[in-house]
Amino acid sequence: MYTFADWTDDIEHSMMRRLNRHFQGLDDFISLAGGLPDPELMPKEGLANAANKALLEQYHTSLQYGGNRPRLLQHIADLMKTRGVECTPENIEITAGGQQCMDLASRVLLNPGDTCAMADLSYAGIRQATKPRQPNILAIPIHPETGLDLDVLEGHLKSGVRPKFLYTVPAAHNPVGVTMPLAQRERLMKLARQYEMPVLEDDAYGFLEYDGDPIPALASIDPDWAVYLGSFAKILAPGIRLGWVVAPADILEKIGIAKQIATLSPSPMSQHIVDNYLTDNDFEAQLSMLRTQYGRRRDVLMDAIEEHFPAGVVAHRPTGGMFVWVQLPNGLSALEAMKKAAATEAVGCLPGIAFGTNSAADETYKSNLRLTFVRYEEKVIAEGIARLGRVLKTLV
Amino acid sequence: MYTFADWTDDIEHSMMRRLNRHFQGLDDFISLAGGLPDPELMPKEGLANAANKALLEQYHTSLQYGGNRPRLLQHIADLMKTRGVECTPENIEITAGGQQCMDLASRVLLNPGDTCAMADLSYAGIRQATKPRQPNILAIPIHPETGLDLDVLEGHLKSGVRPKFLYTVPAAHNPVGVTMPLAQRERLMKLARQYEMPVLEDDAYGFLEYDGDPIPALASIDPDWAVYLGSFAKILAPGIRLGWVVAPADILEKIGIAKQIATLSPSPMSQHIVDNYLTDNDFEAQLSMLRTQYGRRRDVLMDAIEEHFPAGVVAHRPTGGMFVWVQLPNGLSALEAMKKAAATEAVGCLPGIAFGTNSAADETYKSNLRLTFVRYEEKVIAEGIARLGRVLKTLV
Repeated sequence: MYTFADWTDDIEHSMMRRLNRHFQGLDDFISLAGGLPDPELMPKEGLANAANKALLEQYHTSLQYGGNRPRLLQHIADLMKTRGVECTPENIEITAGGQQCMDLASRVLLNPGDTCAMADLSYAGIRQATKPRQPNILAIPIHPETGLDLDVLEGHLKSGVRPKFLYTVPAAHNPVGVTMPLAQRERLMKLARQYEMPVLEDDAYGFLEYDGDPIPALASIDPDWAVYLGSFAKILAPGIRLGWVVAPADILEKIGIAKQIATLSPSPMSQHIVDNYLTDNDFEAQLSMLRTQYGRRRDVLMDAIEEHFPAGVVAHRPTGGMFVWVQLPNGLSALEAMKKAAATEAVGCLPGIAFGTNSAADETYKSNLRLTFVRYEEKVIAEGIARLGRVLKTLV
Repeated sequence: MYTFADWTDDIEHSMMRRLNRHFQGLDDFISLAGGLPDPELMPKEGLANAANKALLEQYHTSLQYGGNRPRLLQHIADLMKTRGVECTPENIEITAGGQQCMDLASRVLLNPGDTCAMADLSYAGIRQATKPRQPNILAIPIHPETGLDLDVLEGHLKSGVRPKFLYTVPAAHNPVGVTMPLAQRERLMKLARQYEMPVLEDDAYGFLEYDGDPIPALASIDPDWAVYLGSFAKILAPGIRLGWVVAPADILEKIGIAKQIATLSPSPMSQHIVDNYLTDNDFEAQLSMLRTQYGRRRDVLMDAIEEHFPAGVVAHRPTGGMFVWVQLPNGLSALEAMKKAAATEAVGCLPGIAFGTNSAADETYKSNLRLTFVRYEEKVIAEGIARLGRVLKTLV
């Protein structure tokens, strides 16, 4: 148990590290791989003003030890309202980012050898966070159009499988991009209550819906069985490393203790900066700008795929988030395509197998790619897809 | 295993939380309890300039995902030289603070049920960090004048006990204040090598020696068996939440992976701010100022104890750090003294039992108090001690 070699399997992050190593110094490399937001769209002046205030006026608290900053808790409660969730500062723990949310929830909910459920394609961070517990992963199929297969999940639950939690990304799923419709959300939360299975709702992309109104969070449907994991990474800036958890009282208390063990508290300085920024600026306007820009970039990427990719490729248009899930034709190896694209056309992407959570994934998803459309301005995205298209055409 | 109730025992932090709750709004409360540095001595202007540069000029990296900042690694390597340690950026992992250093080291070195060694009086953070592994704690006696009892440690090792690590604070120990002399350090590292026992060297106070030259770090004596835990909390500002680990390559690699699982990375924004601050300012001058100020405050506290405490009290003068260890006479209960001092004189301190690591500690250390001298200017420290003296005189 806890042998470290097991933690280092071939995951998204290490793939990206290898890609980055390979292309260090290549100025014109275009990465459609990682989920990196565009720094040009981050509110740097607002954050700089917020930092000045934090450091010059509020240094007695910003530079000292401290817990959750009360006014930031209130801002987060206000943000949660826009996701349909009524909560108060007492229901929230601020964390050192979304990854810490997953790590803390795994520490609190999983004992070694327990079972936890997640989509058969899932974000690498949750697999890493659970790995030290060496859990049995109950991999639920997910489809880029119809979403998480709740029939399969219900079958497992009916047959007596009792996962300690289900992890899911209901809004703009990473990696397949699908957003769970309201009826499916209601059915999932009914199952959660019936089988007493907490649902870890990773809502990193819940504020980034581009086609009409967002669908309310799972935590708004049944707050007793949802553990909501929020992050400022995609909507403000990942470099700040702040996130939050909204959870039922018993779980939240344990998460608060686990957080103290892990890092004492999230940085008071960072909390002051984000709090000041949210207090002194129109964050809804910032979010609205992001939705407009990222929505356009999604359209540009989808159009460029249409124009440049060979026939037989299927690309699923997401209504939000950052990712487009692509199926290559003729059983092509996406891993080989990735390697060739990086080596010959200086363009990066990630093969679907980087997200597989069961042993069948290497075969099931060998022809899938994940592309992102948020990091660059529109013409760079189009150029990246044109490059990738040239590679794919040599392979089909 | 991993039952959460076990994590919540009566530790330093929760005692401080209760104290804080009790005295919320009491303006003239003087806390000699927590190890909080003085915000008035923190370089707020230098940090504000550093933040401006990070956010307005370096936002492409400061606000984005990222790993260890290379130039900050170099600054840390330079700092390590002043602790006698020759290392390069490849030997360092930056962390989200000293607590994360302890949590990551515990995750990497301890399996459930393993044995680890530490002083019978130790910082609560290491007990919390190890607690989820439910280890057997091998408690080694420590004395405020003669330090960690290496005869006892060697006896255990000779008899076949094999701790996965020994945790210690060799410079200005928390809570007893003693600094380990060079000969004792050399003997400890010889034992470490002989019995293949890594030593977690918590050097949070290693840059804060007030009486002459500091003693080289354990990691300078045998880098193969020392895992050095560094922190910017006491020498720059705790609110930034940055620390670092210097460790042998195999352990460092595992810590890097555990770090990614825990928080992906320490905040790139915070790393840029500290890096800019260290690049653009004379940090040695800042450290020198801290040593002068804190050294004077230690003297003021020791003089005030001499003047105000009742006869029979023994207070141990530390050569560095933040803490003075006090023995009350006549078997007095330090816990009762703490409660009465808080309630009647609005002054805070911590009872020695808050630091006990074995079941005997409640009895062995029932008459001990830990006081800190760094948070306030000199006259406030003297006033705090005068208040505490009045309380103690009613109890003896």
